[in-house]
Amino acid sequence: MKRRIALISTGGTIEKTYDELSGVLSNTLVSVLDVMLASLELRGVEVQRVALMNKDSLDMTPEDHTLIAETAGRMAREAAGVVVVHGTDRLAVSGERVVALVGTPASPIVLTGAMRPYELRSTDALQNLTEALLAVQLVPPGVYVAMHNQVLRFPGVVKDRVRGTFVKDEP
Amino acid sequence: MKRRIALISTGGTIEKTYDELSGVLSNTLVSVLDVMLASLELRGVEVQRVALMNKDSLDMTPEDHTLIAETAGRMAREAAGVVVVHGTDRLAVSGERVVALVGTPASPIVLTGAMRPYELRSTDALQNLTEALLAVQLVPPGVYVAMHNQVLRFPGVVKDRVRGTFVKDEP
Amino acid sequence: MKRRIALISTGGTIEKTYDELSGVLSNTLVSVLDVMLASLELRGVEVQRVALMNKDSLDMTPEDHTLIAETAGRMAREAAGVVVVHGTDRLAVSGERVVALVGTPASPIVLTGAMRPYELRSTDALQNLTEALLAVQLVPPGVYVAMHNQVLRFPGVVKDRVRGTFVKDEP
Amino acid sequence: MKRRIALISTGGTIEKTYDELSGVLSNTLVSVLDVMLASLELRGVEVQRVALMNKDSLDMTPEDHTLIAETAGRMAREAAGVVVVHGTDRLAVSGERVVALVGTPASPIVLTGAMRPYELRSTDALQNLTEALLAVQLVPPGVYVAMHNQVLRFPGVVKDRVRGTFVKDEP
Repeated sequence: MKRRIALISTGGTIEKTYDELSGVLSNTLVSVLDVMLASLELRGVEVQRVALMNKDSLDMTPEDHTLIAETAGRMAREAAGVVVVHGTDRLAVSGERVVALVGTPASPIVLTGAMRPYELRSTDALQNLTEALLAVQLVPPGVYVAMHNQVLRFPGVVKDRVRGTFVKDEP
Repeated sequence: MKRRIALISTGGTIEKTYDELSGVLSNTLVSVLDVMLASLELRGVEVQRVALMNKDSLDMTPEDHTLIAETAGRMAREAAGVVVVHGTDRLAVSGERVVALVGTPASPIVLTGAMRPYELRSTDALQNLTEALLAVQLVPPGVYVAMHNQVLRFPGVVKDRVRGTFVKDEP
Repeated sequence: MKRRIALISTGGTIEKTYDELSGVLSNTLVSVLDVMLASLELRGVEVQRVALMNKDSLDMTPEDHTLIAETAGRMAREAAGVVVVHGTDRLAVSGERVVALVGTPASPIVLTGAMRPYELRSTDALQNLTEALLAVQLVPPGVYVAMHNQVLRFPGVVKDRVRGTFVKDEP
Repeated sequence: MKRRIALISTGGTIEKTYDELSGVLSNTLVSVLDVMLASLELRGVEVQRVALMNKDSLDMTPEDHTLIAETAGRMAREAAGVVVVHGTDRLAVSGERVVALVGTPASPIVLTGAMRPYELRSTDALQNLTEALLAVQLVPPGVYVAMHNQVLRFPGVVKDRVRGTFVKDEP
């Protein structure tokens, strides 16, 4: 029997699309998440899509982070788990916000994103979404980032901007 | 710090390659696993490759299954986990054999495979390998199959040949 | 203004699809040609699809070759050009048949195919279809194969089975 | 016997690569043309690579256009044909410059480019390069753009910025 999980999309590099007239990659109305989901075999979870916003996380306001955290905490009570797709630059801000506002959620909340848009021929987007959709079934309730073959638990996760990935901020 | 895991390859659909002169897909000397591994960002595990055999699992003998099970059990004592890439038709035979010979291994042993070769434009190979390489870090010691967004524990796992995936053989 | 050309499909490796239950590549009812056409920007030609048969060319009968040749010759009178998608093993038989039955057609007839199915991650299918759809606009009336960056004119074209391509059969 | 053609690269969208730290697509030192060439079966031409510059064509100076035109004209005397990879925004400026400086070149000069970088999952880059490398073997000496399934001859070719392609500027 499939577990029902909520998939909250907020934008970020993973969902950016290319506009050939302007020649730039940006977050537009078109979500590529549905295309990505359709390319995966999902036998473990039933996905409930929640399109919350579509922003480069560098453009997120404090209110945006709070809205994401509150929505994730609420959905964690209704579903068997929550996956949040998020820009990596401010992903850790939203992750820490969930911990600050919710503490330990009712079910696992797993954030993920990508360093390279799904639209690119070479991308980490599918790997990371695959990992988040599996980790959400395996970890105990808590707040995590799943990306690049590792699952790290908040608080204390930061983006390593040089290596382009997440690490535990060990003292 | 990365965990060292052993990746035992045995062949199967996931590794089949296309020969343009004969026009068929088969398991040959060339392994595509290295190409797949190079396309993933692996920050959680350090992979030790063990190329055990390269067979369509329909061609495996009882001795092959025993060799796979013994090798996996032995590597589970030396590494933090083991991933076995295997043809899906007889994957469950090898999984049950590990349980029969080893019981609960020293570290998690995760089997995986694919219904469609990596060489195809549309394939479940990367999804399944991604899942196995993450699950091996998250589950307690035991024998599992990770594939199609779910992790199932042996004994009692069978291939559902109609739907082309694995299910628990519930009585 | 776009030229109207006829695209006659007959099957062959280029159109083979993978069946995951049987594990083989074969010519089935599903045509991948429409997917290929949709992935190209076609500003020069307007394509009229003629789905004549869907066979591995090794299974073609003498009647099949004659039917293909007669259809191509007839369409060449109605359209500004004809492209024939064909299995490479017997492509030259159909090419020579057109010359034998039609001589110099009213507009160019360009045959093409592929050594590796479109369904494969690495394939010559799109390159060859692209070339046929361009060559048909540039060459004088005659019968040709366009594939692997070259356009060769019948009669006297044969498949080089060792190199997996077509060559002129120079005496 | 293969014809030797010169392939002059000047940059443009077709060669842009993605930098994951800055999150933008740009023309850098890395050329993707070699990757593209390696993915094609080239039986008709032998390619001589000439890496002239790597610029977004919006950044080209009048001297750049003259350098491109003179280089193409000179290579057309030494080779059986010339392909120029160029940004589409100013491609027509270089095309007209060749006609102005060289008139009818000694062998065909075919310009091409792309609206979407090769690095994207969905791109016209391979189609256009494939077409240029075939057209250069089929057309009489002259200056052309080959792209999107059509070959147009200079002078009098302009970019249609709304449709994102090239058209003849008919009076």
